[in-house]
Amino acid sequence: MANYIFGNIAGVKEGDTFLNRQELRDAGVHLVLVAGIDGNPNVGASSIVLNGGYVDDYDLGDEIIYTGHGGNDSSTKKQIADQDWDATGNKALIVSEMHGLPVRVTRGFKHKSTFSPKSGYEFGGLYMVTDHFEEKGKDGFVICRYRLEKVSPLEEKQQIAKKSLSSGSDHSKRIPTTILRIVRDTKLSKEVKELYDYSCQICGIQIAVRGVKYAEAAHIKPLGKPHNGKDKPGNIICLCPNHHVMFDKGIFTIKKSDYSLKGIEGKLNLDKSHAVEKENIEYHNEHIFINE
Amino acid sequence: MANYIFGNIAGVKEGDTFLNRQELRDAGVHLVLVAGIDGNPNVGASSIVLNGGYVDDYDLGDEIIYTGHGGNDSSTKKQIADQDWDATGNKALIVSEMHGLPVRVTRGFKHKSTFSPKSGYEFGGLYMVTDHFEEKGKDGFVICRYRLEKVSPLEEKQQIAKKSLSSGSDHSKRIPTTILRIVRDTKLSKEVKELYDYSCQICGIQIAVRGVKYAEAAHIKPLGKPHNGKDKPGNIICLCPNHHVMFDKGIFTIKKSDYSLKGIEGKLNLDKSHAVEKENIEYHNEHIFINE
Repeated sequence: MANYIFGNIAGVKEGDTFLNRQELRDAGVHLVLVAGIDGNPNVGASSIVLNGGYVDDYDLGDEIIYTGHGGNDSSTKKQIADQDWDATGNKALIVSEMHGLPVRVTRGFKHKSTFSPKSGYEFGGLYMVTDHFEEKGKDGFVICRYRLEKVSPLEEKQQIAKKSLSSGSDHSKRIPTTILRIVRDTKLSKEVKELYDYSCQICGIQIAVRGVKYAEAAHIKPLGKPHNGKDKPGNIICLCPNHHVMFDKGIFTIKKSDYSLKGIEGKLNLDKSHAVEKENIEYHNEHIFINE
Repeated sequence: MANYIFGNIAGVKEGDTFLNRQELRDAGVHLVLVAGIDGNPNVGASSIVLNGGYVDDYDLGDEIIYTGHGGNDSSTKKQIADQDWDATGNKALIVSEMHGLPVRVTRGFKHKSTFSPKSGYEFGGLYMVTDHFEEKGKDGFVICRYRLEKVSPLEEKQQIAKKSLSSGSDHSKRIPTTILRIVRDTKLSKEVKELYDYSCQICGIQIAVRGVKYAEAAHIKPLGKPHNGKDKPGNIICLCPNHHVMFDKGIFTIKKSDYSLKGIEGKLNLDKSHAVEKENIEYHNEHIFINE
């Protein structure tokens, strides 16, 4: 069994180059010679290599949309079948996402991006898997997609700075990130939360400390590329943290016919004045909900 | 009624200086002339001024521990009574924390830190309130404390970068932060989560997408200064996102006698092999739990 290391490999830094996959393996960056994803569903994915395997990938440097494995013809690279969320590497990437594990990213010379090396392979640093969703690829078959976001040097620096504040016994270890997420109120998300008095539209729970209420605005069609959902009340619902995680990760979705749920039991509590757009619900059904 | 602006004021940038509180007010940074906290429990706190008012503040630049208002003698600055979480400015800061609102921070010449100006006032940028807790101050009375963390220039830059990816209709608006928190698995937090099979030790819920389970490791005595809790199984419990928020924000705590809860109904499910340290529970009882 491979002994997987998550995070940086001692002696390897961002921008280091490797002649070929064997060198990359010998350095301990990516332990498999052919597969793009190194890992398994028991431990997660420790590393990926981008090398032009899929026509649907895109790469903005700090943000990568990566396609899972399976279903493509190894010679033409075209999709010839649907991909499967349960395939080893695909599930490993979900584990990395759900358990917050950093993934090493290496770009190969065949990967089409401005960040790729002209020859060989270049180590691109650590990324977090922040999102997974389903699409019909350019070739017409279902593909499993992942958003990876770069762990910024500042973030790493801040973690080191915080470490020095701790009087814990393990000074040599990185301090775990345990800060709760900060979901910023915008004018529109606040309106939606206030409409429901900060109660979850799924379970009704209202979280409050000394009368100050807390709820989260969830976007039905997610914001940002490639989803391009809008920050408008027709695309926002008010959820508790549990149902927000479950909704964003595709554990349940809403039926547009009667607002009952699929994936878990229940029904979305919808105020008459709150016009949720069915187009957004359809998008969530098709792209975010993971049908088991 | 003042029309509160949250975030940066047009024309004012970090490092700008002001001769006195009147100038600071005229610039729109901090609209009250004496109070350190500008805001109220209905909208939150939009701005604070640090100017040596409390002996217990500390300031590391990117991180500030700030003391709430009330209970001090205006001439000697000594605490002469307990502070109250329900006092206007104190509650306003909890609203800023729970609703994710940015707070403008200005340092005055009397504030003891290496970041303070020699004279007058200096605008120090935007911060988020990430934590609140209760302490006995140096003068022996209860004080309300807040952790503020600087919104990094990189974070602001990233939000602008993301905005350009959006095809939403509001290109001029900042895109709201809606990414779910990333709580990194460490070896020890993973051990605790696995012991409970990723089920919440309070409510038993197990969140899973295609069999990949998600839970959060909560530290009973928080990590980092001034708490200095340890990242050890005796200080870690496995919670769902809802109970993690509620526990960290002090909505409930655990009784060390029988592990029943205070603040909400229920009992901590504790495995025999999991030796939670009572000292940590005591700390949470005294400093984090907000007795209503």
